[in-house]
Amino acid sequence: MPVYRTQRRIEFGDTDMAGIVHFANFFRFMESAECEFLRSRGLSVKLDWEGEAIGFPRVSATCDYVSPARFEDLLDVAVCIDRIGTKSVTYAFEFTRAGAIIARGKVTSCCVRIGATQAIVGIAIPASYVARLQSDVSSA
Amino acid sequence: MPVYRTQRRIEFGDTDMAGIVHFANFFRFMESAECEFLRSRGLSVKLDWEGEAIGFPRVSATCDYVSPARFEDLLDVAVCIDRIGTKSVTYAFEFTRAGAIIARGKVTSCCVRIGATQAIVGIAIPASYVARLQSDVSSA
Amino acid sequence: MPVYRTQRRIEFGDTDMAGIVHFANFFRFMESAECEFLRSRGLSVKLDWEGEAIGFPRVSATCDYVSPARFEDLLDVAVCIDRIGTKSVTYAFEFTRAGAIIARGKVTSCCVRIGATQAIVGIAIPASYVARLQSDVSSA
Amino acid sequence: MPVYRTQRRIEFGDTDMAGIVHFANFFRFMESAECEFLRSRGLSVKLDWEGEAIGFPRVSATCDYVSPARFEDLLDVAVCIDRIGTKSVTYAFEFTRAGAIIARGKVTSCCVRIGATQAIVGIAIPASYVARLQSDVSSA
Repeated sequence: MPVYRTQRRIEFGDTDMAGIVHFANFFRFMESAECEFLRSRGLSVKLDWEGEAIGFPRVSATCDYVSPARFEDLLDVAVCIDRIGTKSVTYAFEFTRAGAIIARGKVTSCCVRIGATQAIVGIAIPASYVARLQSDVSSA
Repeated sequence: MPVYRTQRRIEFGDTDMAGIVHFANFFRFMESAECEFLRSRGLSVKLDWEGEAIGFPRVSATCDYVSPARFEDLLDVAVCIDRIGTKSVTYAFEFTRAGAIIARGKVTSCCVRIGATQAIVGIAIPASYVARLQSDVSSA
Repeated sequence: MPVYRTQRRIEFGDTDMAGIVHFANFFRFMESAECEFLRSRGLSVKLDWEGEAIGFPRVSATCDYVSPARFEDLLDVAVCIDRIGTKSVTYAFEFTRAGAIIARGKVTSCCVRIGATQAIVGIAIPASYVARLQSDVSSA
Repeated sequence: MPVYRTQRRIEFGDTDMAGIVHFANFFRFMESAECEFLRSRGLSVKLDWEGEAIGFPRVSATCDYVSPARFEDLLDVAVCIDRIGTKSVTYAFEFTRAGAIIARGKVTSCCVRIGATQAIVGIAIPASYVARLQSDVSSA
């Protein structure tokens, strides 16, 4: 069950010479929808949390392309929390246009602490951060 | 076993505010390496073949990110043919830097005939096209 | 005087390792705002118009960067028609954040007829197309 | 007179639905050529120089598009130093294909010192940095 829904208008620069959205752009669309969801909860993929800088670098991403999207199409984007692990979170995304499926994807990110020199160390997702996410995983 | 090897220099515009290559860009890198491989065989992802316009739209793509890549890094890219089906082909890619793994990905494309109005119809990959690819799938 | 106003939320993928929006992305933002303006008038940069396929390829683009924009910033974008010539149109754009100037740019496009083989020929902008644009160039 | 020459192969993902290179991508191509030039001199757009972190954020960019570039085109890119000021440097770029002009552009960057908190302060380009650049502005 989606925890968030948004829309995305396809821009001219999103297309390629095949006349459709270039496949790599769906990963940008997923990230944007994830960030929009997080923002709606007062969260982010990079933020100060309880006195520490934390971030969520991506560890895997996948997308299945069912039907092409074109310039000026208005896509509906559904964001689901697929799985919350100790150190990682996986979001699932579904793109539809007027109810017809366009693409489905997943992105998994792990939680890291970002040190002064930009060095990163994997950590458990803070319980308070998970709590704010969990509250939305109603019946998944 | 790789059928092709190339290199990719990370550009400033490939990075994001985390100081590393933005995850979506690896899909562009994979496509570029695939096209470079195909070009080396006199093939392409969009070309006239035996009197017909054919193309290879992507049906799925996946990437696992093992270690970050940074501005000015020179990545080695190995291209493998993972599977050739009747109507689709899957390439596997491995990105390394000085021998250390950075990322692994796969992209599956299906073969289509492109009509006058840009309409596409799925077709079997032409035997002569497969033959040129097959010759390289030595011991995979 | 702006003929259109919109907003743009900065995405993670818009940034680079300097922690700010990569300069090339402002050109995508300008194009997107132009298309949004045109859409609001029932126009587009690529459309069928009085029985012909016409388009507006870009002939020049320029941007001055005054202050950096960052992840999650919400930019206000003002679109002005700078000049309508016989064969070309120039839009001017101003990006601000909470009233403070971020960047200013201009993009000039020429009108072309797109033939069956995708060949393009420069033409005068159709009078009816200009009329719909002109109606908004109130006191510029 | 060019201080550096390189080449750029047009990728599938560089194109848009008009079948040509999307105009915004030429700015990425310019930056990449600039960085390649700098790298050939042991310089960069972001580096430690005499004990300080310095960078060169862009303050203006412009491009004129003369003729379209297409998938798999191999462009020749000529890099010129247009002007070296006290605090800024302007590069000029010319893109050609088999001798025919495709596009011309300029990018101006200013020199900044990057502090611990990523705060930036405009500074004069270090004399030793300029010296390494100047040596190439032979007869411009």
